[in-house]
Amino acid sequence: MTEPFELTATKALKLIKNNKLSHIEWVESCLERIKTREPIIKAFSFIDYKKPIELAKKCNQIKKENFGIPFAVKDIIDIEGMPTQMGTPFYKDNIPKRDAGSVAIAKHYGCIPIGKTVTTELGHRHPGPTVNPHNYKHTPGGSSSGSAAAVADFMVPIAFGTQTTGSVIRPAAYCGVVGYKPTYGDFDKSGILSNSPSIDTLGLMARSIEDIRIMRNILIEEELFLNENLNINNFRFAFVKSPYWNKTDDDTKVNLEKFISNLIESKVDVQEIDLNNLILESSEIHKKISGYEFKRSISAERFHHYNELSNILRNGRLSDGEKMTLSDYHHLFDHLEKHKNLINEKLSSFDCIISPSALGEALSGLEYTGSPLLNTTWTLLGLPSITLPMFTSKNNLPIGCQFISKKADDNKLLSIAKKILLDFS
Amino acid sequence: MTEPFELTATKALKLIKNNKLSHIEWVESCLERIKTREPIIKAFSFIDYKKPIELAKKCNQIKKENFGIPFAVKDIIDIEGMPTQMGTPFYKDNIPKRDAGSVAIAKHYGCIPIGKTVTTELGHRHPGPTVNPHNYKHTPGGSSSGSAAAVADFMVPIAFGTQTTGSVIRPAAYCGVVGYKPTYGDFDKSGILSNSPSIDTLGLMARSIEDIRIMRNILIEEELFLNENLNINNFRFAFVKSPYWNKTDDDTKVNLEKFISNLIESKVDVQEIDLNNLILESSEIHKKISGYEFKRSISAERFHHYNELSNILRNGRLSDGEKMTLSDYHHLFDHLEKHKNLINEKLSSFDCIISPSALGEALSGLEYTGSPLLNTTWTLLGLPSITLPMFTSKNNLPIGCQFISKKADDNKLLSIAKKILLDFS
Repeated sequence: MTEPFELTATKALKLIKNNKLSHIEWVESCLERIKTREPIIKAFSFIDYKKPIELAKKCNQIKKENFGIPFAVKDIIDIEGMPTQMGTPFYKDNIPKRDAGSVAIAKHYGCIPIGKTVTTELGHRHPGPTVNPHNYKHTPGGSSSGSAAAVADFMVPIAFGTQTTGSVIRPAAYCGVVGYKPTYGDFDKSGILSNSPSIDTLGLMARSIEDIRIMRNILIEEELFLNENLNINNFRFAFVKSPYWNKTDDDTKVNLEKFISNLIESKVDVQEIDLNNLILESSEIHKKISGYEFKRSISAERFHHYNELSNILRNGRLSDGEKMTLSDYHHLFDHLEKHKNLINEKLSSFDCIISPSALGEALSGLEYTGSPLLNTTWTLLGLPSITLPMFTSKNNLPIGCQFISKKADDNKLLSIAKKILLDFS
Repeated sequence: MTEPFELTATKALKLIKNNKLSHIEWVESCLERIKTREPIIKAFSFIDYKKPIELAKKCNQIKKENFGIPFAVKDIIDIEGMPTQMGTPFYKDNIPKRDAGSVAIAKHYGCIPIGKTVTTELGHRHPGPTVNPHNYKHTPGGSSSGSAAAVADFMVPIAFGTQTTGSVIRPAAYCGVVGYKPTYGDFDKSGILSNSPSIDTLGLMARSIEDIRIMRNILIEEELFLNENLNINNFRFAFVKSPYWNKTDDDTKVNLEKFISNLIESKVDVQEIDLNNLILESSEIHKKISGYEFKRSISAERFHHYNELSNILRNGRLSDGEKMTLSDYHHLFDHLEKHKNLINEKLSSFDCIISPSALGEALSGLEYTGSPLLNTTWTLLGLPSITLPMFTSKNNLPIGCQFISKKADDNKLLSIAKKILLDFS
């Protein structure tokens, strides 16, 4: 028998609607799962075992559509009454009095916050204790490490993550769940630790695209539906291997190429396009903008906790930022505008880009959360992207495939992704 | 004899350098001034009478250039250990554990936070108790009400404000101080309540342009100097009356036109240009973008404290935001790009725009903080602007004149403003 914690939100909500499951049973099952698995997975920095049950009791009475989804939140996002520690040892007693905007919205529409998930240090690279549920010796990816692992390990159906480079897509791919980064600006970011505010994006992890749709609708406070009768043959796909193809592992390359062949066999219009120079340039621009903004955003830690910060943070993005002047920063934005136009022009005739989600399966070891090289361009450009758990490596680890669409085409992207998951995985 | 509290930061720092004033004397004098005047002016929501003196003692020992400036911070900006109440009654015990980025930077460079200044409710329109130091029956303007009043009343030399429409320029003009809103993105905004993140800008109030320069240098962590040998005749000025000229009071119009005549007499190149339709359009775009973003940013209050919010907030920006969809928001940004280009094109041959700072002197009564109509366009476009206390009304109230320059031309703007204040006021 399927336990409630195993269900996607969509399925659980359907059972609840048909009186075959109660909100309390659903939430208790998730909490039970967490209690059993957390000592191994270490996905959470804080778990609330009490209030979620009270909230589930209320949901049982309210009986509203899509009410009562248990969810977890990356620990750089404020939830009133739960500590926001941001992957550091010095914010243990930092208990905000105010929900982040997106948390307040989710709560209002009945979602039940279960806890805070492990983040890398301040959303940068230094890892937390979380392991990959598919192999405990492998990284879950980062920076939204705990969110990806908690969803993959059936502790919660949905979790919030954030992405400044590849922090939603990569951990989701490594953990074998759906990871979604919307168009820049679509979800509110107030009450979320800034890393690089002109790039930072709140994203979602779930075990189905329908779950992503439901939570997206909650966060944008609109009722949008996917196109269920979509014909994949009406769209144009660009296959972007990226300049990092030779760094991409064989499992990923073979699986992805086989998938592309299958698409072509099904008469889907897929064209390989070369954006190598532009993608390399994106990385350079991203490094400088994110470095400069990060240096300023984490000034409280830079000045009050410098000696407690990891070397990778001090010598990484912080050091990148310290090389920049305000004038460099201004010029970079002018340059970025032209850069965006060049890429958008190259992509103008395509509906969707297909690209690896990461350079390969989740790496062995917990020290390094992996490379975001394959996500940088799309994040810098603010384009919506989604990773789908489509393949499995020889080591039995999940491999994701990344789909990217034009700005504001999120609903089309989700519709296409759903169809592809149904027909090609 | 001049009391230390009366000094600009520049002058106080010079005296300290020459051992004619100590940091402790300076800070104690400001605190004494606050103690005497605060019962009348009501500029502060929180004052720290103790820690600033400890910090001043440290500054006496450290003896660094530009160290030890006492400053005050608008109460939507976090200072560790001081309550962030945001002009609401329900955040009395909201004491952040983390400094806002710009506060952390200022502290690191020796600035001494004295307290939190009164803001309108959540940075919107519902006023706090602050009065205008020039006439207690008149509004100080808003939303950065306390910051403008505290600087004008010699309680602190410098204060932080924020501007989403006209919330730095207008109160500064009403209170007769220098108000400066930098190019969008120049100062870090982490730890500041979001209103409309794509427009919100941290700004400064002071009693001299040199003080603005010093604090700007601190916040951008660079040492920039103004051009002291600037020849005003080398620049092209655009005089923009705006479509609200017929709503502008006579005192403002007469003084401004006289100033323009003086410039022309001095062979300064000033041309009146008509941006009326574009400025009206800016207001429409601003209303929609800021409404949509505000609605999301204050979701915690919208959902958890709705009945405690003012009518003006519920029926104002919140209601504007509720009329919008995500799709409207996306289209609006496309429209904004074109709109920006049109205005920038019209202004391309000018170095500096001259325009009234507000529709007139500070209004009588404390209920209404005045109209931001004359600031909306420049805030929406992210252009740097400064208001100078150049004129006095028949009622003996200050009238400001606003100067706006191109994006990233802040140093030129400050240099021009300094020269104008020297030669034409």
